[in-house]
Amino acid sequence: MIIVMSPDSTESQVETVIRKIKEAGLEVNISRGVERTVLGAIGDERRLDQELFESLPGVEQAMHIVKPYKIVAREWHKEDTVIDIKGVKLGGKQVQIIAGPCSVETPEQMDKAAQFVVDAGCKLMRGGAFKPRTSPYAFQGHGVEGLDMFRKAAGQHGLPIVTELMDVRMLDTFLEYDVDVIQIGTRNMQNFDLLKEVGKVNKPVILKRGMSATISEWLMAAEYIAAGGNHNIIFCERGVRSYETYYRNMLDVTAIPVLKKETHLPVIVDPSHAGGKAWMVPALSRAAIAAGADGLLVEMHPSPCEAWCDADQALNPQELKDLMGTLRGIAQAIGRDL
Amino acid sequence: MIIVMSPDSTESQVETVIRKIKEAGLEVNISRGVERTVLGAIGDERRLDQELFESLPGVEQAMHIVKPYKIVAREWHKEDTVIDIKGVKLGGKQVQIIAGPCSVETPEQMDKAAQFVVDAGCKLMRGGAFKPRTSPYAFQGHGVEGLDMFRKAAGQHGLPIVTELMDVRMLDTFLEYDVDVIQIGTRNMQNFDLLKEVGKVNKPVILKRGMSATISEWLMAAEYIAAGGNHNIIFCERGVRSYETYYRNMLDVTAIPVLKKETHLPVIVDPSHAGGKAWMVPALSRAAIAAGADGLLVEMHPSPCEAWCDADQALNPQELKDLMGTLRGIAQAIGRDL
Amino acid sequence: MIIVMSPDSTESQVETVIRKIKEAGLEVNISRGVERTVLGAIGDERRLDQELFESLPGVEQAMHIVKPYKIVAREWHKEDTVIDIKGVKLGGKQVQIIAGPCSVETPEQMDKAAQFVVDAGCKLMRGGAFKPRTSPYAFQGHGVEGLDMFRKAAGQHGLPIVTELMDVRMLDTFLEYDVDVIQIGTRNMQNFDLLKEVGKVNKPVILKRGMSATISEWLMAAEYIAAGGNHNIIFCERGVRSYETYYRNMLDVTAIPVLKKETHLPVIVDPSHAGGKAWMVPALSRAAIAAGADGLLVEMHPSPCEAWCDADQALNPQELKDLMGTLRGIAQAIGRDL
Amino acid sequence: MIIVMSPDSTESQVETVIRKIKEAGLEVNISRGVERTVLGAIGDERRLDQELFESLPGVEQAMHIVKPYKIVAREWHKEDTVIDIKGVKLGGKQVQIIAGPCSVETPEQMDKAAQFVVDAGCKLMRGGAFKPRTSPYAFQGHGVEGLDMFRKAAGQHGLPIVTELMDVRMLDTFLEYDVDVIQIGTRNMQNFDLLKEVGKVNKPVILKRGMSATISEWLMAAEYIAAGGNHNIIFCERGVRSYETYYRNMLDVTAIPVLKKETHLPVIVDPSHAGGKAWMVPALSRAAIAAGADGLLVEMHPSPCEAWCDADQALNPQELKDLMGTLRGIAQAIGRDL
Repeated sequence: MIIVMSPDSTESQVETVIRKIKEAGLEVNISRGVERTVLGAIGDERRLDQELFESLPGVEQAMHIVKPYKIVAREWHKEDTVIDIKGVKLGGKQVQIIAGPCSVETPEQMDKAAQFVVDAGCKLMRGGAFKPRTSPYAFQGHGVEGLDMFRKAAGQHGLPIVTELMDVRMLDTFLEYDVDVIQIGTRNMQNFDLLKEVGKVNKPVILKRGMSATISEWLMAAEYIAAGGNHNIIFCERGVRSYETYYRNMLDVTAIPVLKKETHLPVIVDPSHAGGKAWMVPALSRAAIAAGADGLLVEMHPSPCEAWCDADQALNPQELKDLMGTLRGIAQAIGRDL
Repeated sequence: MIIVMSPDSTESQVETVIRKIKEAGLEVNISRGVERTVLGAIGDERRLDQELFESLPGVEQAMHIVKPYKIVAREWHKEDTVIDIKGVKLGGKQVQIIAGPCSVETPEQMDKAAQFVVDAGCKLMRGGAFKPRTSPYAFQGHGVEGLDMFRKAAGQHGLPIVTELMDVRMLDTFLEYDVDVIQIGTRNMQNFDLLKEVGKVNKPVILKRGMSATISEWLMAAEYIAAGGNHNIIFCERGVRSYETYYRNMLDVTAIPVLKKETHLPVIVDPSHAGGKAWMVPALSRAAIAAGADGLLVEMHPSPCEAWCDADQALNPQELKDLMGTLRGIAQAIGRDL
Repeated sequence: MIIVMSPDSTESQVETVIRKIKEAGLEVNISRGVERTVLGAIGDERRLDQELFESLPGVEQAMHIVKPYKIVAREWHKEDTVIDIKGVKLGGKQVQIIAGPCSVETPEQMDKAAQFVVDAGCKLMRGGAFKPRTSPYAFQGHGVEGLDMFRKAAGQHGLPIVTELMDVRMLDTFLEYDVDVIQIGTRNMQNFDLLKEVGKVNKPVILKRGMSATISEWLMAAEYIAAGGNHNIIFCERGVRSYETYYRNMLDVTAIPVLKKETHLPVIVDPSHAGGKAWMVPALSRAAIAAGADGLLVEMHPSPCEAWCDADQALNPQELKDLMGTLRGIAQAIGRDL
Repeated sequence: MIIVMSPDSTESQVETVIRKIKEAGLEVNISRGVERTVLGAIGDERRLDQELFESLPGVEQAMHIVKPYKIVAREWHKEDTVIDIKGVKLGGKQVQIIAGPCSVETPEQMDKAAQFVVDAGCKLMRGGAFKPRTSPYAFQGHGVEGLDMFRKAAGQHGLPIVTELMDVRMLDTFLEYDVDVIQIGTRNMQNFDLLKEVGKVNKPVILKRGMSATISEWLMAAEYIAAGGNHNIIFCERGVRSYETYYRNMLDVTAIPVLKKETHLPVIVDPSHAGGKAWMVPALSRAAIAAGADGLLVEMHPSPCEAWCDADQALNPQELKDLMGTLRGIAQAIGRDL
């Protein structure tokens, strides 16, 4: 950690800071500049609390120079992590498109959807049984009954399933229904108790980015899961809040190369929630794959106009099929498969 | 709801929209303009889903004209709601300053803090037993033990207590320790299962604004609590995420008059988490009270430099006392007490 | 325009609004709903000022339903506009990569740069003679002398040039040096007097997006140029301000499909200023082309480490060459050339 | 400046950085930590370009520790600067409220407005002759004719005038009409050529904050003016762009104490453009003065409903008078006058 003393700090204030650093078991390098004195703490700086130092009299600024995340950091784990989901590999050379409806509605809808997912060439299926809705008066999902419909429909077509967990008390039920990938939604990215619990189970977790989370906060949220022992984490960029009102969220495409540099874990993108309109999905999907994403989480509904929620952002089966063709070309242009 | 058809929509598309509106039990007003046809749905428009209509072919835009919140809306409840916290009134003529340390550390620290809170003239005390921390490796609070220390220290000084609930499984413990006001933190503003549970208990709830929540989303989060039966909700503005890096969050002072217009419930401000630096707290506190806030949630620590977390943003006892004096003058200038 | 009256508006207030609409020469459609009365103005609603109506007593909200831009709107001009820059076509099937250094430094540097631009297969060159710098003490560019160096170097390699105009008083000099494409920078997107002047000349204009401009404001800024008679406008997305600090700006990749829908004019992307780091440029460039951009504005420096400004974001010649190869593959995957 | 080398940097890369620092005439302090080597440059670090260093191989991060602004910084000029505007003092103990209409419309309107400004107890008048409008088809102001009307009306009531300069070519006309305070609008905060020109004249300048300018960029924009010799600069906070759509801009009240700490120059607030609605103006005005602003720039129109632009945000004369009374009480509560 580097501590910059303010220009009018006294010698005794400098000494107090030095003492605090040494008490934590680190060494100190002192650099007296023309306008300011700068102290460098040498040793394991994770033992120093930046805010504590910034509150000491005479301190202008304290900065960590080491990244606060460890298990998820590429600095400590150079090779890409490839996650195995019942035989489907995510994070390797092959790009994976996870498709399916926003909400589980009926057994028929799920069966049709699963068939279309397979027909389009996708190997994983998504669907929501528990729905985080802005309004308490909106449809909240079919819950456990929805989980059951999803499990059955996907099972008949041999598709592993991805679905969102909102309530920590429901985790056992998810394990019981053998959910293959647990999704943590945007609104729960910093629901730390939920992160700790999914950190203890042996299931891959998709961690969606918080509505306006920094990349660093996101990596730290993943570190919460990893610290519990579960290292099978998949980052999912889904757009962040911005001032622009034309679309729902601003897809942060730059987060893709940044995450690929900072972490060894797979990165996927949800183009449907980002834009919020079906007609934007193909362009955003192409951009995501071109930028290096390992996969997508796309909404597809057998008949979008009849969907119960977020209908506006779902592709129809033919659109998904067409999109898969284009994405294959892009994947190949950058040396990957689909 | 108003539905704007796109310029090239067909007559049969217009008819489909009309049929959908009528199926929901509403009437339709048709306005054929020079460039676009506009349909108005007349009746209880909460029965219509905006996204569903926007996904219909030929529809350019669908807009609700009625507010989506009901119980918390001033439109349906004109007078200010005054919440009674063991005899302390929040939301009335008197402004309430809730002070105390960020974290519960030791019985001695809590006892001193409680004494200073009383000395400064504050009637409610805050303190954190469960701490939401960005890093899994940072101090997470003393938990139940901290709750116990807090309850005892505050009790000896006759102060009702405010503390944060993070995990739904801990609610019974909060009731057992008779926490007077349950705080829902920024990261949990849209933890809907948690909101539903605190909606069922008979305790005032402070609902902090999400990191980048819109005012409308915030009102809807309160509506989740209210829909469960608990109408004792206090909004707490604590700054929102912005591009500015000089301070931690951007205090949205405009949210105060906006909330006072939109809801009958009390509104308080947390100037400590907003700025993130103790030296900013007085200016932000003065601004909040001047703008019409019903109270503040302020960090005060008996000896800030020794605090275990967020030390940098806590006032010391004398600073709190001085601030109270200034705030009293401002409260009087706008016709209130403190 | 649609005017929503507030629930407690009086009959005479409704009549005042109706009178105002009729005075402007439009017809009125009245829709009396359960909770609110809604008025629709029928006719050329550009004659009505939304803010004027919102200020009338009893009005809750006034909304335009017709887009405020006209000349630049695809609604009025269905086919893509292809801009001819000395024989190089921008906006058609072929994607154009405009490359060159951030700043004009020396004749040798510019000569080398031009050679590398040609070698990489690019047909247009960029370079800055006038530099908008945050600090008055930073290098402000070589000015007219730089323009001269750039003109000569590019001329010898047959490359049309793109350079930024900051001061309206310098426009004649730009015409004198026959600048092929005039760039309006981020900080001047709403410098309306500058827009009006470039609207009067017969030169293509690249209009960069303002630091946090909405897409609608950006289209209106282009409309300022177009209203003067110059319809050769190229939109350039360069990232917008966000709370994320890992990179310089957040590239708004969604703006690409949105602009392609809203306007018939070409859209390019500046991946260098967006990310701010050379290592991010390839991923962002690939994303931009995959999303449908008509071209790129990329920084390339013959020897980046010696550059005088923004060195950190420039590719070296080999990196540019490699990038061109990858982009060609992506362009083909979506049915375009490069 | 502090330069953090990446964990895998080589010894020769470290030496290159050291050589570059020494070439610029500074000394180097080397601190070899457990995970990273950190170099500190000792001397006048304004001579070092952060971006240049970040582009050198092996460098992870380079950070300035000295502020980039000088003339405007309180670090170099401890006492508050009080600006004298024809005898009216801005920046001292007395708070100044600058009131007047958004646009100059007619001589009668301006005469009435001036009378109401005086009646309310304000000592300075604002009014727009040149209007920056989003649309090229909207009313652009009366220009020089408006300047003339404004000058005459204000003169008859002994009020110094504040008005916006948009085009550098109009500066001589402003001097001819003896405009007392030149306002630089939001969209021109980084119109550097305009800043340089107003830096050469001997007139106070109000510098509005850019739509999403950081405080640091804003201080640097003021430094552009100051570097030209004109030190009579007044900062005007007017809200920044945010994701919230309920109001027009988010008033950044925290900027007030931050600027008072960082600069010796006066700080005022424009509550009218911030909120965008007249009913929000009183609350925002109270907050601004309570937070320590030296004054306000408020819109007041003799008859708001008939105003030609921004009508929705103007107070009427009585509202201004009432507001002045409340603000006086707040000013006194914090030891100031009005």
